[in-house]
Amino acid sequence: MQTTELEQLIEQITDEIVQRFGVLPAASSACRCHTVAVTSCPDRVRFIIECGADRVGLHSTAPPVSREMAQYIDHTILKPEASLEDVSKLCREAMENQFAAVCVNPSYVRHAARMVCGTSVAVASVVGFPLGATLPDVKAYETRRVIGDGAREVDMVINVGALKSLDDDLLRRDLQAVVEACRDYEVLSKVIIETALLTDDEKVKACLLAKAAGADYVKTSTGFSSGGATPEDVALMRRVVGKEIGVKASGGIRDRATAQKMIEAGATRIGASASVKIVKEAKLD
Amino acid sequence: MQTTELEQLIEQITDEIVQRFGVLPAASSACRCHTVAVTSCPDRVRFIIECGADRVGLHSTAPPVSREMAQYIDHTILKPEASLEDVSKLCREAMENQFAAVCVNPSYVRHAARMVCGTSVAVASVVGFPLGATLPDVKAYETRRVIGDGAREVDMVINVGALKSLDDDLLRRDLQAVVEACRDYEVLSKVIIETALLTDDEKVKACLLAKAAGADYVKTSTGFSSGGATPEDVALMRRVVGKEIGVKASGGIRDRATAQKMIEAGATRIGASASVKIVKEAKLD
Repeated sequence: MQTTELEQLIEQITDEIVQRFGVLPAASSACRCHTVAVTSCPDRVRFIIECGADRVGLHSTAPPVSREMAQYIDHTILKPEASLEDVSKLCREAMENQFAAVCVNPSYVRHAARMVCGTSVAVASVVGFPLGATLPDVKAYETRRVIGDGAREVDMVINVGALKSLDDDLLRRDLQAVVEACRDYEVLSKVIIETALLTDDEKVKACLLAKAAGADYVKTSTGFSSGGATPEDVALMRRVVGKEIGVKASGGIRDRATAQKMIEAGATRIGASASVKIVKEAKLD
Repeated sequence: MQTTELEQLIEQITDEIVQRFGVLPAASSACRCHTVAVTSCPDRVRFIIECGADRVGLHSTAPPVSREMAQYIDHTILKPEASLEDVSKLCREAMENQFAAVCVNPSYVRHAARMVCGTSVAVASVVGFPLGATLPDVKAYETRRVIGDGAREVDMVINVGALKSLDDDLLRRDLQAVVEACRDYEVLSKVIIETALLTDDEKVKACLLAKAAGADYVKTSTGFSSGGATPEDVALMRRVVGKEIGVKASGGIRDRATAQKMIEAGATRIGASASVKIVKEAKLD
């Protein structure tokens, strides 16, 4: 059987399942195209209507807690002393557990991209990390370089000093530099606002500017500052950005209970190093 | 009197002092051209011989403890939440106390360069900071950008992961990328090896590679890792690099006694935030 024939057959079977049961098959249970619960995914809704449905059940603002934990997780190693072998291990664990992505420093992107090539695991990298205090065009250059090496997701750090100095022009240029470079290559952009250093007003402003710049996610923390994610910050960020873009909780998430709290507060992605422990705990429940 | 006439007069008086007393005048007591004690400065030796001396007294390997403390210090603010006003204050303090340099994050270089323009205070900035885990060409780009904005000294972080992974090729490319960009503009390069993360063998290797790449200084720490400078590490680094290049001690140096210990161990530059406190304590002695 030819590959195209096989693909057509799979598509026919998929259509049949959808028409009979009104749901997308399990392989698509994670909505990768939007950062909402799969049951609220616009593509799913359109698809079901095209299949002949005259009523569609949707989740409202409730977080997608039923989605399997592993699919939320960016399996992360960013400590400077991480070796090539540490990164290889991270990639193997990510593939075994079907994590959403591995998140590595720029100099390891090429190696990670080779390792996870052909799997559902994306490679994420970091830009202007972890201080966010470099120049917009340096961040843009770094973004293009990690994308060139294989990153499909970019986690950039906002210029916190510019936020503290009320330099909105620099903040906008900083965000645009990275978000636009990501868009050029259809790569996801996540904006780390480093909540531990901000007042609530500053958190709100940072989220609004990130959303306005066209970021795909706002993210709580680098994991290198004085504090990490809290459910309160995640909930605040979710309220500010609405349902249109994602919220990633990261920093200090070391067990399933904490991860679950973040998801319940509105997180659609979790950054963690203890990811394997988290999913093992999730399976025991 | 014209400025040129005044300059000629000052030069004549200076020459007279040197010929009569065999020493450089006080204004030159800090050797800026070499990272050795002023009494061992090759330029001074040549100068004195040219003046007719037939014997020159030199310090041997003893550290230049008599040099005034302020001239050792890079007055530093690198925390991401530092505001424009914090950087302005830093620059004012550096000018008042005649510190060697201010050290600021890339996005503040232009502002700092404007503030200290026309004074003896240099602007230093950081590259690949503080993880050192980005790509060599990103570091080179960042180096050129901060130099373009007015930095005269660049403190770069070595790729610690490459050191741990025994990837000597990447380490060399990483160092060369920054050192060569600095040389193009006659800017000082300092290589941060992040001693807290390294074994003694790794410290030695990092210093040798930095020296071989043509760096002007090796530097102990970023101040963002698990530990800062120790006199033992400074002494080790001094032994490895010899007298030809500088050693900068940084991270956790908060008082005069600690700063003095670093200088006695062989440091020729001190990175500190508590610089004003350190020089006030030094004056009280």
